[in-house]
Amino acid sequence: MSLADFAAELPLVDHHVHGAFREPLSRAEFEVALNEGSPGPVPAGTTQFDSQLGFAVRRWCAPLLGLPAHAPADDYWDRRAGLDAMEVAERLLPAAGVDHWLVDTGYAAEKLLSPEELAVAAGGAAHRIVRLEALAESLAGSLAGQETGAAAYPDAYRDLLRTEARDAVGVKTVVAYRAGLDLDWSPPEPAAVREAAARWLAAAGPQPRLTDPVLLRFGVHCAVELGLPLQIHTGLGDRDLDLRRVDPLLLLDLLRQPAVARVPVMLLHCYPYHRAAGYLAQAFPNVHCDVGLAVNQVGARAPAVVAESMELAPFAKLLYSSDAFGPPELHVLGAVLWRRATASVAQSWVSAGDWSEPDARRVIAMIGRENALRAYRL
Amino acid sequence: MSLADFAAELPLVDHHVHGAFREPLSRAEFEVALNEGSPGPVPAGTTQFDSQLGFAVRRWCAPLLGLPAHAPADDYWDRRAGLDAMEVAERLLPAAGVDHWLVDTGYAAEKLLSPEELAVAAGGAAHRIVRLEALAESLAGSLAGQETGAAAYPDAYRDLLRTEARDAVGVKTVVAYRAGLDLDWSPPEPAAVREAAARWLAAAGPQPRLTDPVLLRFGVHCAVELGLPLQIHTGLGDRDLDLRRVDPLLLLDLLRQPAVARVPVMLLHCYPYHRAAGYLAQAFPNVHCDVGLAVNQVGARAPAVVAESMELAPFAKLLYSSDAFGPPELHVLGAVLWRRATASVAQSWVSAGDWSEPDARRVIAMIGRENALRAYRL
Amino acid sequence: MSLADFAAELPLVDHHVHGAFREPLSRAEFEVALNEGSPGPVPAGTTQFDSQLGFAVRRWCAPLLGLPAHAPADDYWDRRAGLDAMEVAERLLPAAGVDHWLVDTGYAAEKLLSPEELAVAAGGAAHRIVRLEALAESLAGSLAGQETGAAAYPDAYRDLLRTEARDAVGVKTVVAYRAGLDLDWSPPEPAAVREAAARWLAAAGPQPRLTDPVLLRFGVHCAVELGLPLQIHTGLGDRDLDLRRVDPLLLLDLLRQPAVARVPVMLLHCYPYHRAAGYLAQAFPNVHCDVGLAVNQVGARAPAVVAESMELAPFAKLLYSSDAFGPPELHVLGAVLWRRATASVAQSWVSAGDWSEPDARRVIAMIGRENALRAYRL
Repeated sequence: MSLADFAAELPLVDHHVHGAFREPLSRAEFEVALNEGSPGPVPAGTTQFDSQLGFAVRRWCAPLLGLPAHAPADDYWDRRAGLDAMEVAERLLPAAGVDHWLVDTGYAAEKLLSPEELAVAAGGAAHRIVRLEALAESLAGSLAGQETGAAAYPDAYRDLLRTEARDAVGVKTVVAYRAGLDLDWSPPEPAAVREAAARWLAAAGPQPRLTDPVLLRFGVHCAVELGLPLQIHTGLGDRDLDLRRVDPLLLLDLLRQPAVARVPVMLLHCYPYHRAAGYLAQAFPNVHCDVGLAVNQVGARAPAVVAESMELAPFAKLLYSSDAFGPPELHVLGAVLWRRATASVAQSWVSAGDWSEPDARRVIAMIGRENALRAYRL
Repeated sequence: MSLADFAAELPLVDHHVHGAFREPLSRAEFEVALNEGSPGPVPAGTTQFDSQLGFAVRRWCAPLLGLPAHAPADDYWDRRAGLDAMEVAERLLPAAGVDHWLVDTGYAAEKLLSPEELAVAAGGAAHRIVRLEALAESLAGSLAGQETGAAAYPDAYRDLLRTEARDAVGVKTVVAYRAGLDLDWSPPEPAAVREAAARWLAAAGPQPRLTDPVLLRFGVHCAVELGLPLQIHTGLGDRDLDLRRVDPLLLLDLLRQPAVARVPVMLLHCYPYHRAAGYLAQAFPNVHCDVGLAVNQVGARAPAVVAESMELAPFAKLLYSSDAFGPPELHVLGAVLWRRATASVAQSWVSAGDWSEPDARRVIAMIGRENALRAYRL
Repeated sequence: MSLADFAAELPLVDHHVHGAFREPLSRAEFEVALNEGSPGPVPAGTTQFDSQLGFAVRRWCAPLLGLPAHAPADDYWDRRAGLDAMEVAERLLPAAGVDHWLVDTGYAAEKLLSPEELAVAAGGAAHRIVRLEALAESLAGSLAGQETGAAAYPDAYRDLLRTEARDAVGVKTVVAYRAGLDLDWSPPEPAAVREAAARWLAAAGPQPRLTDPVLLRFGVHCAVELGLPLQIHTGLGDRDLDLRRVDPLLLLDLLRQPAVARVPVMLLHCYPYHRAAGYLAQAFPNVHCDVGLAVNQVGARAPAVVAESMELAPFAKLLYSSDAFGPPELHVLGAVLWRRATASVAQSWVSAGDWSEPDARRVIAMIGRENALRAYRL
């Protein structure tokens, strides 16, 4: 069996993913959903189909909807618009070949299939990842009216996290979006947490958004106490984020803490800092990384990005994820592009005489599946 | 027709370029002109011909002067030295195959062919790009002696810009060289502008150089009011510049301003931050980018740099430029290297089954020509 | 002769290397020694053999120990463990094909073969590189007890450096590890040096470690006065170092100083900032760079890293080094991987018609050998 076939047939663990849309989209909404960076709209006279991701949709998803590969964008859209959201999901999702989905349920959950629904449509098992900031925000609703809310915040947060984590296999932080990663990463003092909670609860509206650095750090350190794998958003995302402030190297002072060294840390996305992430994965025994989201966004360039991620990181520390959110095209493309990219990169090393073919197979299985099974104890 | 032939025959828009030298050069001057980074001299015992750009000159320009490809550096120099500057220009420039030259006239204009002269020698039409800082400096000469010069500065600058812009298709800022891009990017208050103008005019000598951050920002915001496409130097340049302070990500606070969102922004050069530039082009509907100058400087590595620039940026947001300045070798090499690089990269994606060949053709035409025609309304 | 054969047979100058271990290692110690980033241990359930470097050891060193290429890790270890340290060294080191070793003797010298012993085991000539910080630390021992130690420090340091440098061909600084490169790089005032020396000597224990920025800068400027080539650690290293603070671009204010412009500056390692290092090598006539250490660590990815290093840097400014430390596998792999990478990259340019084959040969010889002979006056 060729490496390409081996990679194509390997059941994957998608260790960081969101649900698929449960409702139909307009074409404008679909195009915006293909552009990670911008909330839209797509500029007049252009189409987001004219991008690496758009080309990948036409190449790999069109056949799954019964169209030829590279079908024109209008044809693709017409066919897709003739199906309801669940039909789209059911045609596309199984082609991902994923048998464990680790789903972040903390963002826009009402628009998305639940983990269980995703698993039914896609095949495979669903697992939950708790988003730390979403917990804080749900707590703010219940504590905001209470006189002793701020004093109660630390214990209430810990309790809520413990409860939610019971059914979860990991936690995730989006501090990158909320304050950047250039924080004082020391555990905050209890009094500082109470003061920050008082300020936040006093100001919180009906849909509170946590951006206070003290409470963000508090959440991360509570998660570290819990001991579950900690996913950290780093690198690219939408333009709410300052890309200069989400370099994973900014986590150095966090990673150097002995308590943090005891939990698996998963650096997500990382692009364009994936080489730096590989350095951290080499330097810290508990640090792992992926190039999820990036592999989808760069389409035909996925082999280059995957190859760069395989420089310094020990092979036991690399993971697969799609970071798909919304259109199920993203759930399947993540897998298709990663399989092709990893196989072609490994094949090039085998052909050059640098790697043996059995080693290549073994590494593909580690990254696509086995490392995640081990790190998340699935 | 192969992709290589298609790219070779496409008439290009070179959206950022300078004039060609009008006077002959010594060999030492020529070698320095091949090295973007250093004002020279080339170190003893070495030659700037021994660089990617030098090899590209010998490979692609030697045949245009009647020599074999890869002719030795001495042969190349001897042949070139036997021609006058206009003969060199007339032999080389037409081989660029450019039919619209967008010429920055704000630097060392006296040594260079004017846009019109360039167009005559090269073929194609010339258009002007106004350099914001050069306008301020010309104004300083006329206002410096006047008692009310500082008070008059804001209106006088706006008037001058409006007048100069009448014959221009865009404006350009080199704030990267003058203060770095790590500025407070808010529009300065009128009083602050007058105070800064007073300080600058009082200190200005006969050849004033604008480095005051308030006046630099003022110029940029005046240009934004005007509505023309705004070119911004980012990334590599000579050693006057601090490469750490010219990362296009430093423009985030400028790009987030609603007024700025209404004008096309062109990030120039970008290397080694071209991936970050692609992210901005994805995240902001009005942001475009190129890898001009870099493509020339890296020679045989142009395919790698072009490929990296085609990761996140939507294909409607990428542009071609040479950023040639001085030796007409640079005007033609920019085009030759970009055509070869883009065709070879696109061909690799077609061969791997990721792109269709018609799509590849369409994208090459967008980047080499059509995006610029649309964005600059040529 | 093919480019691959030419590169394989070229006698190299390894311009930055350490000794090989003189004592046998446990397997755990060996695996840690393959991981530049971490002091260990390797995480449970994983092996550092599963990394690019580990795969390169099995591919290229196994045959030198009489095993098949890609021999399993356990087989490799068993064979190696059956040899004593000198046997391992004598089997591996000559395969590097290095005829000048420039050895940094300033770190963990007691565990390593001396330059002379290395040269005997490996073949070739040994030369010394003086580590500036190690000199300061040896001086601290002798001055710490003396009442006038701090006052004597500046002259004593200069004298010691002059003495040590008599038998050396260059000096090296690890200020990157000790304070980061984001320093005020101006030469410190004599009074400031004496004050800093007083503070340091007062606090210095039996094994003093120099981290004071004033004394670190003082060392660098003393070396500049001396006029020998100055090696500067930049880029990757172990996790003691903050990778964000070792970007060679942080040296800009140092490199702009006229006194510094008079000595060859060698930027070591540079990864992941090797493109920025190439820019500095282009911008400053005295600046050179290498991708030592990185080439070993990235194994099969060496061609990509080498190619990136050959973008902006003039070919007369690139050097070869292994930065091998400890296992003699690293001394030989540096050479094997660099030869293969450089030949394959150059061959791809020749095959594409960008370079001529004689030029490719000439450039390989420059980088692998001749630039170092010239810059170090060997």
